Amino acid sequence: MNVVDLITKKRDGGEHSPDELKFLMEGTVAGTVPDYQMAAWAMAVYFRGMTPAESTALTLAMAASGETLDLRGLAQSQKLIVDKHSSGGVGDKTTLTVGPIVAACGLPVGKMSGRGLSFSGGTIDKLEGIPGWSADLTTARFRRQLREVGLVVAAQTAALAPADRLLYALRDVTGTVPSLPLIAGSIMSKKLAAGADAIVLDVKCGRGAFMELRPEARELAELMVSIGRGAGRRVTALVTAMDQPLGRAIGNNLEVKEAIDTLQGGGPADFQELTQEVASEMLLLGDPELHREREVAGVEAGRSSARSRVQEAIDSGAAFDKFVQFVAAQGGDAAAVVNPDRLDTAPVVIDLESKCGGTVSRLDARAVGLAVAALGGGRQRKGDAIDHRVGVVLAAKVGEQVLAGGPLCAVHAADAAAARLAADRILQAYSFRDLPQLDTAQPEEGGAAGRAAGEGNQARPIILDRITS
Amino acid sequence: MNVVDLITKKRDGGEHSPDELKFLMEGTVAGTVPDYQMAAWAMAVYFRGMTPAESTALTLAMAASGETLDLRGLAQSQKLIVDKHSSGGVGDKTTLTVGPIVAACGLPVGKMSGRGLSFSGGTIDKLEGIPGWSADLTTARFRRQLREVGLVVAAQTAALAPADRLLYALRDVTGTVPSLPLIAGSIMSKKLAAGADAIVLDVKCGRGAFMELRPEARELAELMVSIGRGAGRRVTALVTAMDQPLGRAIGNNLEVKEAIDTLQGGGPADFQELTQEVASEMLLLGDPELHREREVAGVEAGRSSARSRVQEAIDSGAAFDKFVQFVAAQGGDAAAVVNPDRLDTAPVVIDLESKCGGTVSRLDARAVGLAVAALGGGRQRKGDAIDHRVGVVLAAKVGEQVLAGGPLCAVHAADAAAARLAADRILQAYSFRDLPQLDTAQPEEGGAAGRAAGEGNQARPIILDRITS
Repeated sequence: MNVVDLITKKRDGGEHSPDELKFLMEGTVAGTVPDYQMAAWAMAVYFRGMTPAESTALTLAMAASGETLDLRGLAQSQKLIVDKHSSGGVGDKTTLTVGPIVAACGLPVGKMSGRGLSFSGGTIDKLEGIPGWSADLTTARFRRQLREVGLVVAAQTAALAPADRLLYALRDVTGTVPSLPLIAGSIMSKKLAAGADAIVLDVKCGRGAFMELRPEARELAELMVSIGRGAGRRVTALVTAMDQPLGRAIGNNLEVKEAIDTLQGGGPADFQELTQEVASEMLLLGDPELHREREVAGVEAGRSSARSRVQEAIDSGAAFDKFVQFVAAQGGDAAAVVNPDRLDTAPVVIDLESKCGGTVSRLDARAVGLAVAALGGGRQRKGDAIDHRVGVVLAAKVGEQVLAGGPLCAVHAADAAAARLAADRILQAYSFRDLPQLDTAQPEEGGAAGRAAGEGNQARPIILDRITS
Repeated sequence: MNVVDLITKKRDGGEHSPDELKFLMEGTVAGTVPDYQMAAWAMAVYFRGMTPAESTALTLAMAASGETLDLRGLAQSQKLIVDKHSSGGVGDKTTLTVGPIVAACGLPVGKMSGRGLSFSGGTIDKLEGIPGWSADLTTARFRRQLREVGLVVAAQTAALAPADRLLYALRDVTGTVPSLPLIAGSIMSKKLAAGADAIVLDVKCGRGAFMELRPEARELAELMVSIGRGAGRRVTALVTAMDQPLGRAIGNNLEVKEAIDTLQGGGPADFQELTQEVASEMLLLGDPELHREREVAGVEAGRSSARSRVQEAIDSGAAFDKFVQFVAAQGGDAAAVVNPDRLDTAPVVIDLESKCGGTVSRLDARAVGLAVAALGGGRQRKGDAIDHRVGVVLAAKVGEQVLAGGPLCAVHAADAAAARLAADRILQAYSFRDLPQLDTAQPEEGGAAGRAAGEGNQARPIILDRITS
């Protein structure tokens, strides 16, 4: 096979065979296909797209390009090992709640996770704020913990899907990131290589997500479900709202606290709802009993049972106990999660007050994420160190009313100057409507819909679409 | 400026500013813009194209990326220094005739030329068959010879338009060669850097050319004329037929002999015609008297005068004398061009006979070019050595009648096995119509047009389009 011929084929709208894609991915890892050829090919894929069959073959080729985890035999009684993936957002600490809940319900959760970049946080970063906790596990330890604890979260190793790692790094510097088949292949190849039988995908959509538009997010979700089907895995994808941050806490230790609160039955309504939904979908995919119930009594009956189990795992304390057990198994200080006030806190906390009264009509998730990253809570570049203490706790979210002089949010910072800068940025991220001191309402996106939904304090839907294989 | 932003801009259909293109070309030469980014950008250009303004700016940026020749002051009496360029074909030895003719008419011709690749020959390769002749000239020697002899042909140095050289090498291995703005920029950047005031472009079109289709060839010709205009140069482009080889000789020394024959008033009709046309256009652009005549008395009057001068240069022997002088000035053995039988000849010559009688309806230039390259007369890869002695002399061209057992061509080879192989390939390149031994005419491309043009032995038009700035 000749690389130039393959580039030309894609450039001219042709369809690659699985062998051709295998050749390209293996050549990328072996270094026999140079960067410049992959870059031209990726741009051709950007313009020409891929058929579902090509997307599946690309994903399988990337998944097979390095080590793969074999988790077979680690689940009992025909239960499946489920994984979940979020496409990344602001304030997204969902893995910290759904992992323990699903594991407490008896389904093993073995997850490879990543670190945050730019406005988006990462699960590993959040957990590393717990003293002693480590994501660097050998495969043997991963398997043992999955069998003994039923929950494990490890950092993705470079040996897993190396073709994806190399291709992603190249796309990042060649303007070829926003290609649906390449995005879907990148996400799914890591999930397939990580060995789970079933996967729930949380595709974020909105200002604080990589996919800003709903049709695009839905298309990505459908493509990933189709790839999973082609690879013989059960997959459900949820398209979920990420216009404003998820929950009220943004910033690593602050998010761990909010996750603990939610595992104990508290927490913000939107984050409770997303946790409930994602955990239920994981149970529906992986638990043979619920799966059967869904097939016999219908989707809604199955989902209702799944939700009851999730609620029971929270109410009984089993989910939180599982979280403590999981933290300890990976070397973390259990006392710091049983009593989260022991987690490091920022030296400076300022309360940001609203300059005017009204209803919050918009709270730009991306702007908040970038403000937290600037506080030191996220990374500008890969490899940057982060400050786990800093972040923001939102007092007012979209649809909620604030009074002039009332609290908007608390900024947790390393020093006063950084706090002041972040406060200014967050103030810019807010928009209000029905301002009493103005004659006319300020025009804003989604204002009409917000008004129609009721007088302000009703939450917007968090689940926008649901696609299952 | 950020390269990823520039790639993204082009990917999304944006228009680059001259500064942006300068940044990319300078970065390519300096090595600060890596290959993989240029490859992705080139593929984006392939899909999105460029505006005429962008194409001009890209060309100027490539021309300015290295050394440029300053030829000002080398022409006398307001005459311009003219260059010509052919986009490459089979049997194209036009520079060898038009250079001496135009120089004999008093216009200085200073030309940078290239070597052949694949099915297409190169001027330097042909001239290097003359013992002692060298294309490696210093700039000082180039200028002196241009002033003293009025004709110089030098190999393009790596210092001339290095951005083009690097970008072309990259396009060659990334499936991004067939992009009109990149092709036009590549050709014109070298012409601009080589310092001529006026340029005649011979854009070949057909099976033996890089542009197979006439609308595409015309579009390329128009784009190059527009770029030349934008760069303040006078440019005329001819789109000329390259379905069958030009003239009868293909192969380096064989072509030199045919060029000498043509400079002395002989030579094949199609090659005579193209020589006449290209030389006339060069005179029309560069000679102030003819230029004035064209403006006052009209294009046809000007062209008629130019043709008379060309004919006079041939008939008087001035053109051939200029060729001898030029060869000697660059170290070549003048005796070998005065008596071209002294040029090296191939040890094996076989005459290929037609298996059937009829009229030649097709003679695939590319197939003939590849057959000659396989004989050793051309290159598979850059840097390959070539055999100047080998090649083909066509006895029958399109529209000409052959008898069963009559001569088709002579194959000049290094040995009998190579000759036999080439003969088989060339036989495949021929098609015939009106075969007496068949009841029906064989269907073929262009057959009807061929028949309409008369009973066979009338030549097809060689000039397809003419675009002038």
